[in-house]
Amino acid sequence: MKAAVVPALGAPLEIRDVPVPEPGPGQVLVRIETCGLCHTDIHAARGEWPVKPKDQLIPGHEGVGTVEALGEGDLPVTLGQRVALPWLGHACGHCRSCVAGWETYCTSPAYMGYTMDGSYAEYAVAYASHVVPVPDAVTSRDASPLTCAGVTTYKGLKVAAPQPGETAMVVGIGGLGHLGLQYARVFGSRTVAVDVHDEKLQLAKDLGADQVVDARGDQQAELEALGGVDVALVTVPSPAAMRAAHAALNPNGRLVLVGLPADNRLELPVFETVLKGISVIGSLVGTRNDLADCFDLHARGLTRVVTEGRRLEDVNACFDEVLAGEVPARLVFEM
Amino acid sequence: MKAAVVPALGAPLEIRDVPVPEPGPGQVLVRIETCGLCHTDIHAARGEWPVKPKDQLIPGHEGVGTVEALGEGDLPVTLGQRVALPWLGHACGHCRSCVAGWETYCTSPAYMGYTMDGSYAEYAVAYASHVVPVPDAVTSRDASPLTCAGVTTYKGLKVAAPQPGETAMVVGIGGLGHLGLQYARVFGSRTVAVDVHDEKLQLAKDLGADQVVDARGDQQAELEALGGVDVALVTVPSPAAMRAAHAALNPNGRLVLVGLPADNRLELPVFETVLKGISVIGSLVGTRNDLADCFDLHARGLTRVVTEGRRLEDVNACFDEVLAGEVPARLVFEM
Amino acid sequence: MKAAVVPALGAPLEIRDVPVPEPGPGQVLVRIETCGLCHTDIHAARGEWPVKPKDQLIPGHEGVGTVEALGEGDLPVTLGQRVALPWLGHACGHCRSCVAGWETYCTSPAYMGYTMDGSYAEYAVAYASHVVPVPDAVTSRDASPLTCAGVTTYKGLKVAAPQPGETAMVVGIGGLGHLGLQYARVFGSRTVAVDVHDEKLQLAKDLGADQVVDARGDQQAELEALGGVDVALVTVPSPAAMRAAHAALNPNGRLVLVGLPADNRLELPVFETVLKGISVIGSLVGTRNDLADCFDLHARGLTRVVTEGRRLEDVNACFDEVLAGEVPARLVFEM
Amino acid sequence: MKAAVVPALGAPLEIRDVPVPEPGPGQVLVRIETCGLCHTDIHAARGEWPVKPKDQLIPGHEGVGTVEALGEGDLPVTLGQRVALPWLGHACGHCRSCVAGWETYCTSPAYMGYTMDGSYAEYAVAYASHVVPVPDAVTSRDASPLTCAGVTTYKGLKVAAPQPGETAMVVGIGGLGHLGLQYARVFGSRTVAVDVHDEKLQLAKDLGADQVVDARGDQQAELEALGGVDVALVTVPSPAAMRAAHAALNPNGRLVLVGLPADNRLELPVFETVLKGISVIGSLVGTRNDLADCFDLHARGLTRVVTEGRRLEDVNACFDEVLAGEVPARLVFEM
Ligand SMILES: [Zn+2]
Ligand SMILES: [Zn+2]
Ligand SMILES: [Zn+2]
Ligand SMILES: [Zn+2]
Ligand SMILES: [Zn+2]
Ligand SMILES: [Zn+2]
Ligand SMILES: [Zn+2]
Ligand SMILES: [Zn+2]
Repeated sequence: MKAAVVPALGAPLEIRDVPVPEPGPGQVLVRIETCGLCHTDIHAARGEWPVKPKDQLIPGHEGVGTVEALGEGDLPVTLGQRVALPWLGHACGHCRSCVAGWETYCTSPAYMGYTMDGSYAEYAVAYASHVVPVPDAVTSRDASPLTCAGVTTYKGLKVAAPQPGETAMVVGIGGLGHLGLQYARVFGSRTVAVDVHDEKLQLAKDLGADQVVDARGDQQAELEALGGVDVALVTVPSPAAMRAAHAALNPNGRLVLVGLPADNRLELPVFETVLKGISVIGSLVGTRNDLADCFDLHARGLTRVVTEGRRLEDVNACFDEVLAGEVPARLVFEM
Repeated sequence: MKAAVVPALGAPLEIRDVPVPEPGPGQVLVRIETCGLCHTDIHAARGEWPVKPKDQLIPGHEGVGTVEALGEGDLPVTLGQRVALPWLGHACGHCRSCVAGWETYCTSPAYMGYTMDGSYAEYAVAYASHVVPVPDAVTSRDASPLTCAGVTTYKGLKVAAPQPGETAMVVGIGGLGHLGLQYARVFGSRTVAVDVHDEKLQLAKDLGADQVVDARGDQQAELEALGGVDVALVTVPSPAAMRAAHAALNPNGRLVLVGLPADNRLELPVFETVLKGISVIGSLVGTRNDLADCFDLHARGLTRVVTEGRRLEDVNACFDEVLAGEVPARLVFEM
Repeated sequence: MKAAVVPALGAPLEIRDVPVPEPGPGQVLVRIETCGLCHTDIHAARGEWPVKPKDQLIPGHEGVGTVEALGEGDLPVTLGQRVALPWLGHACGHCRSCVAGWETYCTSPAYMGYTMDGSYAEYAVAYASHVVPVPDAVTSRDASPLTCAGVTTYKGLKVAAPQPGETAMVVGIGGLGHLGLQYARVFGSRTVAVDVHDEKLQLAKDLGADQVVDARGDQQAELEALGGVDVALVTVPSPAAMRAAHAALNPNGRLVLVGLPADNRLELPVFETVLKGISVIGSLVGTRNDLADCFDLHARGLTRVVTEGRRLEDVNACFDEVLAGEVPARLVFEM
Repeated sequence: MKAAVVPALGAPLEIRDVPVPEPGPGQVLVRIETCGLCHTDIHAARGEWPVKPKDQLIPGHEGVGTVEALGEGDLPVTLGQRVALPWLGHACGHCRSCVAGWETYCTSPAYMGYTMDGSYAEYAVAYASHVVPVPDAVTSRDASPLTCAGVTTYKGLKVAAPQPGETAMVVGIGGLGHLGLQYARVFGSRTVAVDVHDEKLQLAKDLGADQVVDARGDQQAELEALGGVDVALVTVPSPAAMRAAHAALNPNGRLVLVGLPADNRLELPVFETVLKGISVIGSLVGTRNDLADCFDLHARGLTRVVTEGRRLEDVNACFDEVLAGEVPARLVFEM
């Protein structure tokens, strides 16, 4: 099968012909139709994080496709079913986090496209327990970005619990943020979108943002004029953007972090955090339930996914495109 | 009456004879018996915070005494009642925070010993609505530290909601921390006390800490060996201590900030915050309900307050004592 | 001024010319523009509840109008401001419920149109602290039903916290339910509307219900086929409807009660309640914040209020109309 | 091996010599040391519930023993480990409840001593994923009642979240209640114990109840005099006791149901439920985390388990003893 492989950390990916993998016990073989490009894939391919990915990695954790073979065991999926293969490839099911409903913080997890091969390929093997069925009403191309960008922002908001009487701000209206903005609407909150590109601000308006704020202007003054915000979801990996969001928070405000900045340091102002009773909340992807919710919301017509299709052969150019910040939305490889 | 007055920000306090204040509408005159010395009083007298205190300030927000005169209005206190005069001197009662049960984040508050005169005096005037009755079973000298140090740590833990199956760590076993440690026990959590002085570590043991950790040693290794912590309440205004506490957190861990460091910057590691789903939570003092809870817990015998009595005349020496870090527990002025 | 007065409990109301009341300290005089008819008004006029209303009662707790005079004190409203006068006429501000943000359960409350005169009149006196400003974008006629029917269902759902991935059912699509249904959508949940009248079921569809179920058919089978429900808000005062709703609940389901049945007994099946971890939650009206939220949601275009205008002179006929169950929506008196 | 078998629903149990079962994939064989007698075992043996148990049932879901053999698979337990075998014998791990941390409401569960054979025997087979390790500091005889009576009351309180400033009442100080009372203390609440036997009331005092109330007297008046209660855990399967507990609740009070009355009907007063914002919460046993918490609390010395040892041969007499209400505490079979 065709696959994009990381030959060495930091080297360009190579399109290779590799054997179709075989599903082990509890696993399934999925014929991949689409896979989104998440910034994490670039970090993985370059080995930019403290814990390194597997050798000869096939990246990709927004894969969507059809189950073509079943490994041993009593599996909760069927042949021919269309499923998504998210970042959380497997969780143990018995550690304290798993039992408590927080499998995303499992103490012995497997990650698709990181510790396991992912979906930048014609086929991928995944654990049957951790793939998530895709409803008929959701196309594979839409399902792919929902599988990481969607669920990450949905869960980030869910832990912050924006209320109908509150204002939720989403900073960065790209692959993650354009979905986060729509989820903020789903939770009933008044929404504010912040970005620095005209077309992203226009996209935010089209997606129903109650207010848009151009961060190239006097963001703080504008946000104050709007009455401040109660929840801020920052989807850009910029400590400066996080601090600006923090400064806009009302009493009992919540700042949600879902991205991993290259500079791993947010200078948190303690004084304002204490005086206003602010919470800064880290959130990592989402559980199988959360992803099923994202699919359900999409099937109900409550979200729109903005994508551009790409060929897997162009993976290195796509990485460059994303790094240059030129992408209006989520790139999705169509196999 | 005798009072300790701040003649000018940064100058030593002066013991003066000033007129007994008169209660306005909705207020009461309280004959002060005791008042604790909180580090905030030092910040106030020195004008160390961005918003400055009132002119000719009488500090003190741990006052306890007896109601001697009533201002106009239908007041919820009676003559002769013993009450505490906490930091939150008044809240509006109708802003969004007040209505939601978060009066500590009222948008138009008055603060005792800051925007209003406080209890470093023989008498103080306070709003009847915001004094809190002290049960007979609680002495005034014990009630004073509960009025700020107690309620601050109690509420800080309450917002973090430590569970019986969790481990709660309290960093710094001084005026705030020795109470915070006991509240962590009240919530049913396994407790870990961290300090750098032998006598504080011994105090923590005496107060029932399940584990004590000497931060002069390899704190991180010891905390890991204990299985990490789920809630960390940092009562020392040190960003380094906050970072160390953050590093010890388990998945879904909560770091609670209640102190205001001179250096207002906590360098928060974003990567670990996101990967572990950590929350950093600011918390400011507590509501009237929270303080009533602290008094009730003390009356039920669940807390012990460690104090040393002082004369108001020695206020400047007491400030020096606190700044030198030599105080084993809370200093309380006895009028 | 013209007012509808209850001459004796159970007697028809009388339209009388009575003196315009004068606002006492902390109160305002409001020139009433509109007032909705809530079933509670009928219970009040008939003295059907254990605690009886004031003598010579003027009912009405959905009044909306303009502030025309101010009583003594520093009031949080201004002359000419348009405000709503909800059921909770006053709360003490210092009992445990008030301080905790649950003023609706104040231990010494005043109720408009029950313990105080209400808004079935050209003028009403209300406490300045407890009237709620009406935004310009909300007409008085729309604001009236929001003031009780709206906030009651909004808060009922809020305490049950329906999630975007869940299904919320609203039983009875009348004055309360047609708003409750829309709030369930606001919270992001899939919605199911249940009623026994074709025109109400049609109204539910028009208001965006994802599913409608005719309770004259096999309700239980239909709800099972829909996958059960997670939250059920019952707006009809019928124990049978409550039991049917209970039977449709999924694990961790929540049944919300906001109405007061003539027969005060719900036979709760304990077995199913325990085996499914079901909660049955009582909820009474809402706070000032909750009502402000309802106005804000309406101003944002998220709700539609279905009303019919009536003359105060027809109050007795209107009561009969409501009792006969003939009213498609909320009746609103226009003064 | 020796086992107590239900030959037919409603017939006396028979002590038989049956083959030692073999663990299948994912299972372990446990040599049972102790097993508590839970009222549920009697319901099971008599077939008193709508869904019937397996044929030729060996009851028992408070088994504790040592792992003697491992089935196939990568199991999270080791040979020789001491473990508890709770009611929840298995949960699927992928239904919505399981993923959300509510495995006790799994849609395809297995129950020990009901749908699977239980621990009234010298050996039992259990799923490795769902046995819970018993710490060295907890004896098997203590661990047995914790495995159902303990975790059931612990979790029942946990979902009601009693706070340190609140009062929690436990009704019935028997097998469940004597543990529930101690857990209410663990959560920091003021505790009230209610019973109708002098020795149970004395036991409650010995276990640290802040107040005891004899339900043979004027329970309601006494509870009112104590200021009402915020949480009520009813461990006796009596609708009358549930109603009395409901009547004692303060605003925002929570009534927790964990028992299954023969008469499956609680007549819930709707009026009071709505006016006070009361919640009635059903709760079924607890998760593996909850049981680990109970063991941890016991190891920390925070609970005392009152048991009487019995021989398995006396199982029928023990059932009679329990049904006669003569048992001061939990009966535990020692194999
Ligand atoms: Zn991703
Ligand atoms: Zn795990
Ligand atoms: Zn202080
Ligand atoms: Zn306020
Ligand atoms: Zn009403
Ligand atoms: Zn009140
Ligand atoms: Zn049991
Ligand atoms: Zn399950």
